[in-house]
Amino acid sequence: MVEPDFEKGNGLVPVIVQDDETGDVLMLAYMNRQAWLKTLESGKATFWSRSRNALWLKGETSRNVQVVKSVYIDCDDDTILLKVNQIGGAACHTGYRSCFYRKVVDGKTEVIGEPVFDPGEVYK
Amino acid sequence: MVEPDFEKGNGLVPVIVQDDETGDVLMLAYMNRQAWLKTLESGKATFWSRSRNALWLKGETSRNVQVVKSVYIDCDDDTILLKVNQIGGAACHTGYRSCFYRKVVDGKTEVIGEPVFDPGEVYK
Repeated sequence: MVEPDFEKGNGLVPVIVQDDETGDVLMLAYMNRQAWLKTLESGKATFWSRSRNALWLKGETSRNVQVVKSVYIDCDDDTILLKVNQIGGAACHTGYRSCFYRKVVDGKTEVIGEPVFDPGEVYK
Repeated sequence: MVEPDFEKGNGLVPVIVQDDETGDVLMLAYMNRQAWLKTLESGKATFWSRSRNALWLKGETSRNVQVVKSVYIDCDDDTILLKVNQIGGAACHTGYRSCFYRKVVDGKTEVIGEPVFDPGEVYK
């Protein structure tokens, strides 16, 4: 049973989430062993919330879950890549499709893309 | 001048590197403030090597540098996305195009893709 090297990052590994269809990078989150096993078992992206210190089924509040299409592990066993089907069309809690909705240009940020949902409506 | 929140990760932020043309996720590395400024200034991806504890111009040995096409910062200011032109065609020190050349299937890994170069030839 392959497993990331959780010890390297004090129990956590970074996880890149990519849209399986468009190739857009949607977000980065972290998994501990429990989140890793839960993701493989359930087929839904499950992370470890560093701010809440709790297992976090992505979309548990917004219902924008991420259906896992494929899982990759990097050469050093310390980073995971998930290709997912993003339910609801947006991964970011701000309502944007991707958490990387700000481009850095000449030392400033430019917002790219349009919000998919209104966070005030989704997180009541 | 926009800047990632380096303090959150004890001076380091994770950086996702994506191929600007194909959308392939090539690797994940880390930047400290020095690496961030160097990358913006030089236009070549520069990281902080956690194993060598040193500034790391990606491709300094292999000559497979990454020419930065665009830079994105995430909603929490704690992750960077670089879209790059990967010189030499391969980002991974193993010779594969992407560090994510292993797919996890039924608890085992399957190698996907073919190596682009022979590491024995490149890292003499």
